Amino acid sequence: MLHSAETLNKKIEETIQNISFDLKPASLYEPMRYVLSHGGKRVRPLMTLLATNLFSGSIEESLKPAIGIEIFHNSTLVHDDLIDNSDMRRGKPAVHKKWDANTAILSGQAMQIESFKYMASVPSDLLPQVMELFSTTAMEVCRGQQLDLDFEKREDVSESEYIEMIMLKTAVLLACSLKLGATMARAQTRDAELLYNYGINMGLAFQLKDDLLDVYGNPETFGKNIGGDIVSNKKTYLLIKALKTSDKEQHAELLKWITAEKFDKEEKIEAVKNIYNALNLKSISENLIEKYYLAALDCLSSINVANERKKELISLSENLMYREK
Amino acid sequence: MLHSAETLNKKIEETIQNISFDLKPASLYEPMRYVLSHGGKRVRPLMTLLATNLFSGSIEESLKPAIGIEIFHNSTLVHDDLIDNSDMRRGKPAVHKKWDANTAILSGQAMQIESFKYMASVPSDLLPQVMELFSTTAMEVCRGQQLDLDFEKREDVSESEYIEMIMLKTAVLLACSLKLGATMARAQTRDAELLYNYGINMGLAFQLKDDLLDVYGNPETFGKNIGGDIVSNKKTYLLIKALKTSDKEQHAELLKWITAEKFDKEEKIEAVKNIYNALNLKSISENLIEKYYLAALDCLSSINVANERKKELISLSENLMYREK
Repeated sequence: MLHSAETLNKKIEETIQNISFDLKPASLYEPMRYVLSHGGKRVRPLMTLLATNLFSGSIEESLKPAIGIEIFHNSTLVHDDLIDNSDMRRGKPAVHKKWDANTAILSGQAMQIESFKYMASVPSDLLPQVMELFSTTAMEVCRGQQLDLDFEKREDVSESEYIEMIMLKTAVLLACSLKLGATMARAQTRDAELLYNYGINMGLAFQLKDDLLDVYGNPETFGKNIGGDIVSNKKTYLLIKALKTSDKEQHAELLKWITAEKFDKEEKIEAVKNIYNALNLKSISENLIEKYYLAALDCLSSINVANERKKELISLSENLMYREK
Repeated sequence: MLHSAETLNKKIEETIQNISFDLKPASLYEPMRYVLSHGGKRVRPLMTLLATNLFSGSIEESLKPAIGIEIFHNSTLVHDDLIDNSDMRRGKPAVHKKWDANTAILSGQAMQIESFKYMASVPSDLLPQVMELFSTTAMEVCRGQQLDLDFEKREDVSESEYIEMIMLKTAVLLACSLKLGATMARAQTRDAELLYNYGINMGLAFQLKDDLLDVYGNPETFGKNIGGDIVSNKKTYLLIKALKTSDKEQHAELLKWITAEKFDKEEKIEAVKNIYNALNLKSISENLIEKYYLAALDCLSSINVANERKKELISLSENLMYREK
């Protein structure tokens, strides 16, 4: 049977909303319920189910590990928001704001353990490879988070270091979600690897697109405030590329804005964006995104499955690529 | 072969000191190395190996999950110290002091993932039960930590609530360490359960002893400052019991000290200890410890293994019971 992304999404949402968080103490479970019930795109569990679907596996069997991935992803968001001091998430106060830092630390920790519990529910003959895939990925995500933090203190981050960081922080979890779905469907190793590589390339394109939207997105459709990364000096692809390709004068101006402690936000966004424009970074970035996107589709097309079954994944890729938020 | 606790301890220490933390970024792995290399009693991995030894299993096979338990335990200490704002651990600055809060959050998270990786190394036919045992226990420890935090804000914690909290926060991980060792040795389910219950009772006795030593320990041999729990109003067994069994006057005095914002530390310790003495709490507490200790030994004696093999576990129990620190 071929399931539509819409049907699968509904299943994911229903399952998440029905998770029982009635365990004690409520002070631990209530923040978990709060975070998980606030939606988000649910891209990762959808990818798991679409991958299972691709290889005609059982969606019912894949549902638990798929939700496990979503729980893990949310655990990293809870800790990330605390670390970055981000007050809002999906339009609601972050856990450390609604409760406090200790609650964010402990409930994030609990969600991570819960995600391993969900993984442990897979059929026992698949458990060793699922545990290997998931624990390796979880550690990579952690390493990516730490690299991201380290980069904040450095002005000399190279393009390849940046790509490695977003690979770890973002791409490997998408790739893991897909490979997990393939594993659950007992796909051939070669096909599962191709799907993993599709995920890596999609993940890189996805994160670069995120960086781009922050500056060039449509303020009316983009969820966050345009220019947020510029204001906070986030080491995005655009900033790293700008620091590297700017002439002496532009470089000095960039540094001036990065080190300024007091500034008018709009003025800073405008000034930095002008440098990005002068350096043609929008189209340089779009070309790189296109490169990864095409590499992703290439992997997908090499998978040994009828094209008919690939439609939903291709359509998800398009949605992620041509999204405005 | 029957291994001595000393030999096993050496093996544990050697293995931990030889873990490679050369991965990148160093900012993530260096705190992990730092925490794990500073010793501690290594009670949990020793329990795992002694349990494997009890059932004549392979120590080599048990070593990795045993170290996994120790890594998990240390991950909770890193987060606990941050949450409790404890600056020192084993005579060294805590991770959040030597580095910062973000480093403590991320390296604690990474250590937790690493512990699951170690668990995943067990033979695949044992993996489902090991994952079930370990992830359930990890979640219980988290619940215990949260309960402990919740209790700080309450004056009406009952004795049974307290016992439940230390069961979750301390006892289940000791019990899990033992059952893990039994599982690795493919012990009978009944024996593994008896060993688990031995661990629960030992864990309760162990934590109650900890509470007692904080007040009645020998300042020269006790690692921490005597009276630290009294100063910080920690809801120990002694304080909970005192709040419940004190007369009106004593109760008022206890509350006065608990709510006092400025006080002389020694004076507070002296005053609260006097109330504990008047209420005979030292011997009440010792009786309860004895009760759990005897229950533990009772479980151990019911295990279907030659007494000769139980010697090392009995001797460990005695060491934990009659320790001065």
